[in-house]
Amino acid sequence: MRKIAAVIFPDFEMLDLYGPLEMFSFFPKAFEIRTVSTAAGPVKASGGPSTVAEEAFGDGVDYDILLVPGGRGTRIAHSDETLLSWLKDQASKAEYTTSVCTGSLLLAKAGVLEGRRATTNKLAFDKVADQTDGVDWHRKARWVKDGSIYTSSGVSAGMDMALAVIEDCLGPKAAQDAATYAEYIRNPDPDNDPFAATGETK
Amino acid sequence: MRKIAAVIFPDFEMLDLYGPLEMFSFFPKAFEIRTVSTAAGPVKASGGPSTVAEEAFGDGVDYDILLVPGGRGTRIAHSDETLLSWLKDQASKAEYTTSVCTGSLLLAKAGVLEGRRATTNKLAFDKVADQTDGVDWHRKARWVKDGSIYTSSGVSAGMDMALAVIEDCLGPKAAQDAATYAEYIRNPDPDNDPFAATGETK
Repeated sequence: MRKIAAVIFPDFEMLDLYGPLEMFSFFPKAFEIRTVSTAAGPVKASGGPSTVAEEAFGDGVDYDILLVPGGRGTRIAHSDETLLSWLKDQASKAEYTTSVCTGSLLLAKAGVLEGRRATTNKLAFDKVADQTDGVDWHRKARWVKDGSIYTSSGVSAGMDMALAVIEDCLGPKAAQDAATYAEYIRNPDPDNDPFAATGETK
Repeated sequence: MRKIAAVIFPDFEMLDLYGPLEMFSFFPKAFEIRTVSTAAGPVKASGGPSTVAEEAFGDGVDYDILLVPGGRGTRIAHSDETLLSWLKDQASKAEYTTSVCTGSLLLAKAGVLEGRRATTNKLAFDKVADQTDGVDWHRKARWVKDGSIYTSSGVSAGMDMALAVIEDCLGPKAAQDAATYAEYIRNPDPDNDPFAATGETK
């Protein structure tokens, strides 16, 4: 059983979190999903309702898989030292560290992506790249795997990334089963990124 | 400004709700998202965290768009008379009534689908069809539009359905923009249903 930390902070992006969680939730014997934030209690999503955080960064729990969403709230969260030091510590111990969209900005600011290949949201690509040092950012990628670290492109790309993590953990049939249960038209190729050119108008 | 009632009940399916909400959330001047349940407060998703209901069925609020997710919890919710009578009343007044996955079972039990064309989750198709009378169920459909009522297939199909509703409300460019913002590889054809055969093994 792998314990997943679904990290939330004010104004996180809804689908960044819930797309991957949906895929993991098909395997309740393999993955235990826990929401984690600065404090236990409700945390409002960007443009949507609040999700209840079940655990707090200070609780001293260790997790096997970290899931870090992006969203408008990363503009504040990327300088939240409590969050960043928790991320750095947990990422050093976790089996997988994953981010969706601008969640990779938080991983970068926590030092987790130092010297690593990574990707991020396409519309925010230049802004994220400009704010970070020492990361080998890839514009054309549905998701990037570098060792135990998976970073995905914007929002929906997190579902394809989660299926890749499920494939690593449980095998290709499990990943395909999850896509079928969710009636999700999967993009199984990390290099097939139809949105790579979206942010190039800067 | 259209007010959306995102209906939640214990053990609702996460992505059924949050996939469509993500798409609507890109237009905060056009759509106001409110979570509604039996009572205000946290409501646990199937296999995931709790979402906070902001309003209660008894609050007397009217909504322009109803969004009804499915999930394991429909097995209990489909005989919840408070929920069903609220759905029937609201659907008679709403501009759009929408469901994802087995959310259509709730609409059917509320009498909203009487004499209507509709679809549902493919793995639960026969079970849903067997439990309902007077509904013209279509097995091969990503989503079905019948007048003001949209029903979608399982889980991820809700995102394509939501984009179709956005297209009806705001035009085709808005729907395409939402898909691009979400880096979502849209299936814009309601008749293109790659999962239609999934449930035919019964």
